[in-house]
Amino acid sequence: MSVPVDVPVSKRMLYKKNLRKATKGTGRLMLFAGDQRVEHLHGDFYGKGIDTSDANPEHFFRIASKARIGCFATQLGFVARYGKEYRNIPYLIKLNSKTNLVPTKHKDPLSTAWYSVADVVQLKRQSKLNIVGVGYTIYLGSVYESIMLEEAAQIVKDAHKAGLFTVLWIYPRGKAVKKEKTQEILAGATSVGAALNTDFVKINPPEVRGKRDPKLLQRCVDAAGRTKVVCAGGSQKSVKAFLQELHDQIHTGRTSGNATGRNIHQKSLKEAIAMCNAVSAITFDNATVAEAMKAFRSS
Amino acid sequence: MSVPVDVPVSKRMLYKKNLRKATKGTGRLMLFAGDQRVEHLHGDFYGKGIDTSDANPEHFFRIASKARIGCFATQLGFVARYGKEYRNIPYLIKLNSKTNLVPTKHKDPLSTAWYSVADVVQLKRQSKLNIVGVGYTIYLGSVYESIMLEEAAQIVKDAHKAGLFTVLWIYPRGKAVKKEKTQEILAGATSVGAALNTDFVKINPPEVRGKRDPKLLQRCVDAAGRTKVVCAGGSQKSVKAFLQELHDQIHTGRTSGNATGRNIHQKSLKEAIAMCNAVSAITFDNATVAEAMKAFRSS
Amino acid sequence: MSVPVDVPVSKRMLYKKNLRKATKGTGRLMLFAGDQRVEHLHGDFYGKGIDTSDANPEHFFRIASKARIGCFATQLGFVARYGKEYRNIPYLIKLNSKTNLVPTKHKDPLSTAWYSVADVVQLKRQSKLNIVGVGYTIYLGSVYESIMLEEAAQIVKDAHKAGLFTVLWIYPRGKAVKKEKTQEILAGATSVGAALNTDFVKINPPEVRGKRDPKLLQRCVDAAGRTKVVCAGGSQKSVKAFLQELHDQIHTGRTSGNATGRNIHQKSLKEAIAMCNAVSAITFDNATVAEAMKAFRSS
Amino acid sequence: MSVPVDVPVSKRMLYKKNLRKATKGTGRLMLFAGDQRVEHLHGDFYGKGIDTSDANPEHFFRIASKARIGCFATQLGFVARYGKEYRNIPYLIKLNSKTNLVPTKHKDPLSTAWYSVADVVQLKRQSKLNIVGVGYTIYLGSVYESIMLEEAAQIVKDAHKAGLFTVLWIYPRGKAVKKEKTQEILAGATSVGAALNTDFVKINPPEVRGKRDPKLLQRCVDAAGRTKVVCAGGSQKSVKAFLQELHDQIHTGRTSGNATGRNIHQKSLKEAIAMCNAVSAITFDNATVAEAMKAFRSS
Amino acid sequence: MSVPVDVPVSKRMLYKKNLRKATKGTGRLMLFAGDQRVEHLHGDFYGKGIDTSDANPEHFFRIASKARIGCFATQLGFVARYGKEYRNIPYLIKLNSKTNLVPTKHKDPLSTAWYSVADVVQLKRQSKLNIVGVGYTIYLGSVYESIMLEEAAQIVKDAHKAGLFTVLWIYPRGKAVKKEKTQEILAGATSVGAALNTDFVKINPPEVRGKRDPKLLQRCVDAAGRTKVVCAGGSQKSVKAFLQELHDQIHTGRTSGNATGRNIHQKSLKEAIAMCNAVSAITFDNATVAEAMKAFRSS
Repeated sequence: MSVPVDVPVSKRMLYKKNLRKATKGTGRLMLFAGDQRVEHLHGDFYGKGIDTSDANPEHFFRIASKARIGCFATQLGFVARYGKEYRNIPYLIKLNSKTNLVPTKHKDPLSTAWYSVADVVQLKRQSKLNIVGVGYTIYLGSVYESIMLEEAAQIVKDAHKAGLFTVLWIYPRGKAVKKEKTQEILAGATSVGAALNTDFVKINPPEVRGKRDPKLLQRCVDAAGRTKVVCAGGSQKSVKAFLQELHDQIHTGRTSGNATGRNIHQKSLKEAIAMCNAVSAITFDNATVAEAMKAFRSS
Repeated sequence: MSVPVDVPVSKRMLYKKNLRKATKGTGRLMLFAGDQRVEHLHGDFYGKGIDTSDANPEHFFRIASKARIGCFATQLGFVARYGKEYRNIPYLIKLNSKTNLVPTKHKDPLSTAWYSVADVVQLKRQSKLNIVGVGYTIYLGSVYESIMLEEAAQIVKDAHKAGLFTVLWIYPRGKAVKKEKTQEILAGATSVGAALNTDFVKINPPEVRGKRDPKLLQRCVDAAGRTKVVCAGGSQKSVKAFLQELHDQIHTGRTSGNATGRNIHQKSLKEAIAMCNAVSAITFDNATVAEAMKAFRSS
Repeated sequence: MSVPVDVPVSKRMLYKKNLRKATKGTGRLMLFAGDQRVEHLHGDFYGKGIDTSDANPEHFFRIASKARIGCFATQLGFVARYGKEYRNIPYLIKLNSKTNLVPTKHKDPLSTAWYSVADVVQLKRQSKLNIVGVGYTIYLGSVYESIMLEEAAQIVKDAHKAGLFTVLWIYPRGKAVKKEKTQEILAGATSVGAALNTDFVKINPPEVRGKRDPKLLQRCVDAAGRTKVVCAGGSQKSVKAFLQELHDQIHTGRTSGNATGRNIHQKSLKEAIAMCNAVSAITFDNATVAEAMKAFRSS
Repeated sequence: MSVPVDVPVSKRMLYKKNLRKATKGTGRLMLFAGDQRVEHLHGDFYGKGIDTSDANPEHFFRIASKARIGCFATQLGFVARYGKEYRNIPYLIKLNSKTNLVPTKHKDPLSTAWYSVADVVQLKRQSKLNIVGVGYTIYLGSVYESIMLEEAAQIVKDAHKAGLFTVLWIYPRGKAVKKEKTQEILAGATSVGAALNTDFVKINPPEVRGKRDPKLLQRCVDAAGRTKVVCAGGSQKSVKAFLQELHDQIHTGRTSGNATGRNIHQKSLKEAIAMCNAVSAITFDNATVAEAMKAFRSS
Repeated sequence: MSVPVDVPVSKRMLYKKNLRKATKGTGRLMLFAGDQRVEHLHGDFYGKGIDTSDANPEHFFRIASKARIGCFATQLGFVARYGKEYRNIPYLIKLNSKTNLVPTKHKDPLSTAWYSVADVVQLKRQSKLNIVGVGYTIYLGSVYESIMLEEAAQIVKDAHKAGLFTVLWIYPRGKAVKKEKTQEILAGATSVGAALNTDFVKINPPEVRGKRDPKLLQRCVDAAGRTKVVCAGGSQKSVKAFLQELHDQIHTGRTSGNATGRNIHQKSLKEAIAMCNAVSAITFDNATVAEAMKAFRSS
């Protein structure tokens, strides 16, 4: 594993250790995404096909502490409130979040950091919690792009200085962005992630004529260079379909893992844990879909 | 009582003590809201059905010092001006305020902090006043949402670091927000409160087809997790109707108290004190509405 | 005189002394307003009915140093330039100013602080000038309201910390403000002044159907609580009419003084001094209008 | 010469010395204006009637070092690049500049400081260059007025604290400003300069019905009080016409000098030097136009 | 080589050394431009006529480490990620970047610094990488011009203070800019570069009626004074045409080098190295086009 030179010598061991925790030493990330209580408000947590246990924010922590995951990404506030009783979870602090109330056609998206990396470092020191990294979302093509690019650059720099790794969520979005999911624009997004020196960049899967194709990811992965690409899981689908897509993203698209939210937390605790384990089997163990389905059923 | 890990060890006792003062050890908050001289300007303090004593800002302090309340929330300026003579009141400093002169249809709401938590801490140290917490309002769905989310996150963090507890007033409001009071959007609001790690979140009671129903609160309370939900009292109504609604909010809606302004301060000193006592009986003592009415009449 | 608790113990004597200077120990303020060279540009200083001596900025200082006044309010720049030779004047530094070139219908008013309170304190220490307080204007209902509310709150806090008293000019103004001078809105303005803990709040006299009535002030004064209300003098009128109005504002409206500009400085030095003395007789000595007219004529 | 009290005692000698250098002890300023490479881009430096030597920025320095001038005003960057070889020039650093690409009808003018006074002081200490003052432009009536007023106030304060004198270029300009050159509005501009405590204020000469008249300047000079007024030279005209106008501005309009750019630098080195000397003869020596013409011809 | 006085004595040797590295002691710059992964997103790196190796960001580093270049300009993130293994490359850190998603007709361009010069200095100290300078883009005529002028001024000042040299990319662009490539406006752009004291200014080659002519550059070079002018290479063309244009720019237009991106990196590693060597032959060795073609073919 190559360590970028903005990680000081004194923090190299910690940085490697943090990455190793979240990737189980495989270089692939299994990120359990739990920032939607702000990003999507209540919509993801209640309704048809969503287990009632998902109504309680603690559902996230119960899953994350009992399942096999790489890290659990959520806002600092949740970690500060629940973390003491869930000390075994590797946390990734999502530093910015916005609600979905203002649509892009009304105003271009802007999401600014709620906390600095220094705040995260202080919380970690004070709490001894297992915080391994930080995350941040950039909306490329928003008229506020410059604010988010600058914040992201500083966050990656400060995180590396503290031995934390980084994940950037990069979404092309704004009135000037006609198509958010073409291969072309998403390969641009991963390039920007590389220019910002993030360890991982999370994108939506590229589409051609409204359809996903894992082959489209290859160019995005190439464009990211040494920055690794993971895909957003998106809305819920059947377990098998989800695992198949993930497998294809990794083995055809050459991505380095996944960032999965709704396909985990909208399930009951038992099923969510099973889902994490199945996802981890593919991500960390190079399991086939059939093997992963077996892991899901036997969890 | 679980203490979040952003409260440093050295401040845990103080934080617990402050919460205990405002909740009388019950975990429920009785907040006497007195920030309307800015938020509503003169409208709440003069006119039909409003006692003439309410014209004088000191009315607030007379009530708060003589009645049974959890804490009295108002701007730092009032506390600095009147506090010396009302040392027994537990104060919660409302850090931001805006007037009602600019309607949402003219410009999305923006309310920024007048003071930092450090200013509050300094005032407390210097004055030895009984300041137990701080409050802040967020307008979700305003195009200025990001400014307020960031300020709120920093305020909760700084307050906890100083051993103070927090109340966030969270109101969905802006040109893009069509309905401010659906269960869906208010459960989103309490989720955001939880993500910000506030101790209490104050929302308007949810409505269906323009009518309140305490059952609608349940989902909002669930969505808040360990953050506790209190409801705004709203405009004046009959004492009994008010107490009944509060009782239902707590016992049907599972809220953790109330934030009452106009239904207290628009009354004469004697009646306002009686009202506080009745509200506190329900909030702190699990009194029935009949018992609370008795407390009101006998105060 | 009650001292607010944001004045530290070590500055209480100084704060009281400064207030005493400007109120001659009466609690009423006689403020000679001299910030119009920016606020009104050249219009107030030249033309029909304006003495030619008013063309020279030093006219202000000659009047202020020879007449009986509470304090002279102007920009720091003028004080720095002329103060050395006019050491006997009690100065109040007006911290923000804007010109009248951009009309409200073009853009809502915004006026930000040119200097910090720290700048004032440094100038005072360095110059040994007799600076007793600071002033600041807020336009309530402007879309920039939040900027000015925040600056005002910090300025009052910092001034009190330094033992200086404060005057806030509060004017409801902006595209969303249809009527700037109703009793309702001006009582709101004085409430905001109280919430900001200013010692004095300056408003325009309230009107009903375009006519002033000193009785309308009572509610504004009540709403201000312990913050004292003074009225702007406005455009020039006959000496007697002006004094009568001031007398009515104090004795009917229960205001605590006045902030007079044009009715003083547009006169010759001799008449301006006489005017100050007459105004001071009413403000400080409870003189009748007849007595004040006598003071005017004999000055 | 009266020194304002914001100049600390320890810097009074330096402040007086700097002013003396630029005014040759006369109190009148001869400012050679060289900030147009940004303000006007290339237009002033090439074309019909402009000497080809003006194409090279060093032309400025050659003139300034060989002619009799008060000070040479330009951006810090030029001074840093050429200053070492032109050590005899008294420099005034123009702290802000904008290009002329965005017309007022497109957007109101905004020009912010490129450097702080601290940057100037550091450059001076490090280079031992002969820096005597700083300059800054304000566009009154721009919707961005508040930004520039605040920067100007801080710059004058910081400059005086460092013993440097100040020149403010004040131009009424913005969509809301219908006429930029009336006596009324320009007397307002000089008043604002006085309120900001600048040592000199530079304005465009006032006009009536599109025609300049030096008598119109008198009121502007009066309104500036102890702040001294200098006029912008404007576009090139015949030497005699220029000198006559300057003579009239000083002797009829009572201005305290001039700020001349194009009428100097668009000439050949020899003629430019001659022009400076002629301008200086009028400014510093009270020369008649005839005497100045003689100085021009014999230089 | 003249060193500007904002370079402190203690950094003069370092500043000269850095310039010498990038110019091979000739005063001419050969800058290999590699900031397009953000500026142009994916478009420059994949497609017809683009070598497939260009899909990988490491292509840049392989070229830069094996070819003869002056310096390689890219974002700090790439340098931090790849630099350790490419220690021989002289790096110039491009401090700001924006994507091309928001067209000028939608919103005027704004690009703000991702990092401070202090961040660069820290990275250099920590990594011992061969960082010789910093770069920054300004869009003159954008309504955000003032933000970029101020950042650029501070960056040049801070870079010189640290012994680093600077390159400013200056492009006239914005809704108010009708023609971006006239001689007039580009001579203005180089003037602004000179006023900002940058060592090099990069512009697009000027055009008349849509056609480039190296003679047009002369006036731009004159207007830049001691600041040196380099031209952007632009989109790919034949090697010979490119070298001819560069030769003409230097020998007819009197520019001091080039900033070449696509004409290098869109080639295979072998051809890209050959191209760098040919470009360097012209830039550093005064080679003829024929000689440079020979160098290209034999590399």
